[in-house]
Amino acid sequence: MTDKGLSMEPYKGVRDFYPEDMAIFRYITDTMRQTAELFGYEEYGASVLEPSELYRGKSGDEIVNEQTYTFIDRGEREVTLRPEMTPTVSRMIAAMRRNLPMPIRWYSIPNLFRYEQPQRGRLREHWQLNCDLFGVNSVEGDAEVILLASSIMRAFGLTETDFVIRVNNRKIMNFIISDYLKLDDSIGKKISRIIDKKEKLPVAEFKKMVTSAIGEKDEILLTLLESKNFEEFVSHLPKNETLNIALQEMRTLIESLENKGVRNVQFDQTLMRGFDYYTGIVFEIFDTNPKNRRALFGGGRYDNLLSAFGVEPLSAVGFGMGDVTMRDVLETRGLLPKYKNPAYLAIIMAEQQCLPYASELTRKLRADNVAVSMDISGKKVGDQIKAADKKGIPFILVIGDDEVKSGNLKIKELATGVETVISDEKLSAFFKK
Amino acid sequence: MTDKGLSMEPYKGVRDFYPEDMAIFRYITDTMRQTAELFGYEEYGASVLEPSELYRGKSGDEIVNEQTYTFIDRGEREVTLRPEMTPTVSRMIAAMRRNLPMPIRWYSIPNLFRYEQPQRGRLREHWQLNCDLFGVNSVEGDAEVILLASSIMRAFGLTETDFVIRVNNRKIMNFIISDYLKLDDSIGKKISRIIDKKEKLPVAEFKKMVTSAIGEKDEILLTLLESKNFEEFVSHLPKNETLNIALQEMRTLIESLENKGVRNVQFDQTLMRGFDYYTGIVFEIFDTNPKNRRALFGGGRYDNLLSAFGVEPLSAVGFGMGDVTMRDVLETRGLLPKYKNPAYLAIIMAEQQCLPYASELTRKLRADNVAVSMDISGKKVGDQIKAADKKGIPFILVIGDDEVKSGNLKIKELATGVETVISDEKLSAFFKK
Repeated sequence: MTDKGLSMEPYKGVRDFYPEDMAIFRYITDTMRQTAELFGYEEYGASVLEPSELYRGKSGDEIVNEQTYTFIDRGEREVTLRPEMTPTVSRMIAAMRRNLPMPIRWYSIPNLFRYEQPQRGRLREHWQLNCDLFGVNSVEGDAEVILLASSIMRAFGLTETDFVIRVNNRKIMNFIISDYLKLDDSIGKKISRIIDKKEKLPVAEFKKMVTSAIGEKDEILLTLLESKNFEEFVSHLPKNETLNIALQEMRTLIESLENKGVRNVQFDQTLMRGFDYYTGIVFEIFDTNPKNRRALFGGGRYDNLLSAFGVEPLSAVGFGMGDVTMRDVLETRGLLPKYKNPAYLAIIMAEQQCLPYASELTRKLRADNVAVSMDISGKKVGDQIKAADKKGIPFILVIGDDEVKSGNLKIKELATGVETVISDEKLSAFFKK
Repeated sequence: MTDKGLSMEPYKGVRDFYPEDMAIFRYITDTMRQTAELFGYEEYGASVLEPSELYRGKSGDEIVNEQTYTFIDRGEREVTLRPEMTPTVSRMIAAMRRNLPMPIRWYSIPNLFRYEQPQRGRLREHWQLNCDLFGVNSVEGDAEVILLASSIMRAFGLTETDFVIRVNNRKIMNFIISDYLKLDDSIGKKISRIIDKKEKLPVAEFKKMVTSAIGEKDEILLTLLESKNFEEFVSHLPKNETLNIALQEMRTLIESLENKGVRNVQFDQTLMRGFDYYTGIVFEIFDTNPKNRRALFGGGRYDNLLSAFGVEPLSAVGFGMGDVTMRDVLETRGLLPKYKNPAYLAIIMAEQQCLPYASELTRKLRADNVAVSMDISGKKVGDQIKAADKKGIPFILVIGDDEVKSGNLKIKELATGVETVISDEKLSAFFKK
């Protein structure tokens, strides 16, 4: 508390949503919601508070300790503000494993917290659409989820040249690291992280890091990573049955997506995705905007996550799509809608004695489902009109003694200045069309 | 973590929302949202994390320390999971005091946290519609907000005999306590809390508590509290100009609400409402269900809250309406809708070779905005139909070789068993009507 009173700032790294920001948030989440539901995905939800142990086994203690909001409650329970939704949805599915008919299509738009230094596009709190398909252990499941991700991008007005869908398969990469290069677990993890950074590093520096991590095996790996397309990549690999299944899955996936009209798909052997829990395909939606080429969001298959709850594993594939990133992309491309006040009409009183008439008119309009804001501030008419305009209310109606007597009302559209005279009986019908 | 794996329970006192619960939550919040927007209220939002100091000055340290989730972040900042929305909305309005055209009509549906023992209707986390009107310092503002609260109840299908709106005015009660009975501040606070409990206590016990708190002045107060209606109550009060204004406000409010069609209003001199910050009218929506008479939610006028931020005060009136309470009321009265899957149609494949046809059909339907769930589980047809039924998908379509060849499709409505044969070209039109 300063001398001047309490601070008016929100907590560091989180956002206040004034109505114009909230409208954008609503547009983004409504578009996500509508598209997910078009695919038959059902919405679920949960609390932002979760027992901390949920994040321990899987992500490694580092994430729980360093990057989350974790605290002890008054009952000595350790709790965490969820940093991602996948552990929660896995917990919920595990609890109802036997009662939910498969396949399960679920989505949610939770807020997530990360404890990190706020920066552009990386806040401490963001919202994230999560879509997951459970109980389909086939490439067709992978294809559906990628199609859904792509359909949401298209629903926002983005075209297939605006983004590329990069795909890879953990099975292929695991084969290369463990079976082909025969790297042990810790070196395998290290090289995975290096591979993931290839695009961001200068060529020489990347090579140096690879060599320093895996020594003389570097050439085999570099040749694979530098392959220009899937078939060239395959040509550098040995013959192996397990590998062959994974390679065939990749071909089937790309073909299936093409059949569904998704052609902006690219195999990318450097795509790893952060989480340890992925077991099959991984994918990433990549922004091709020349000014800001970057990964927007992604997902993949995680078939083993339920086993952490002591229940039978269940195949699963899904993705998460953040609101901050999407707002940024849509803003850059001019794809966000203009703010509109929820009210169509501002009723403005020229004299206070018009109140009963204005109230009754307002009541009737609302009963007919016309959204009305009635100005009861008692300010001057001119100021009331200015306020309506600034708030983005499209139509105004000034009520004075003449209007009360005659029932003839003059509706004015503020954007065009067009005035329409109409009897009070017909006012609802005017706004219904 | 148990031997069997991680716990599948959510954190104590919070809820998991499986799709059927989420659909109810959505129904409740959508109804709130639509009604608020019909009145021209604009949606805003903020993070659940707030600096703890926001709750200190106003509610007294007790609330921050005992009843909230408060912790220290890694940057030594004290943060709280918001227990109510009014301090947040006041903070946001204060920050933009000069840029927002008055009057301001805002609503939000935030989640709120309280640290207390979970019990029926009182969880550690709930969601609450908050509607506030700023910049209208008149009874007409009070009336609008109460009308909005009443309209939301009506939008849920509740009638005016299902609930009563109890109203009181802090100015009247302050006059009685400070000016008429001349009680000092601490006794005044104590007696306010006792008055608030009148309805819940046996008559004798209540009288004893009043006498023990204020001694020989008890009779004056008890006479006032036992008055059967507003005019009887007024007849026991002394003549005083300030009091008179407050009494006149009460008459105007009840009259204004009656003119707006709200007749289930009752003056209730025992209604105090918990928060210290109220400065004028207070009100409460009271459930008249004989099996469960109780206060559902309420609100009031708070004209001084912005001064805590060192800016000019601003008149404000609003209310909060919780989702747990409303769900309970609507459930008891059978007013909740039946669950519906977002998909209208489940496409079921009899043979896997029908996949390309089924995919293309699905794509076309979705392009026409028909929500479709395609079963790609590879299970037996009978099991796929059972799963669709259990998920609440109203229509099914089984695709086999015959359908692929002929393009004649048999749509079955599961609830009625009615089958319709239709060509694949006309399928979208069938669902559009």
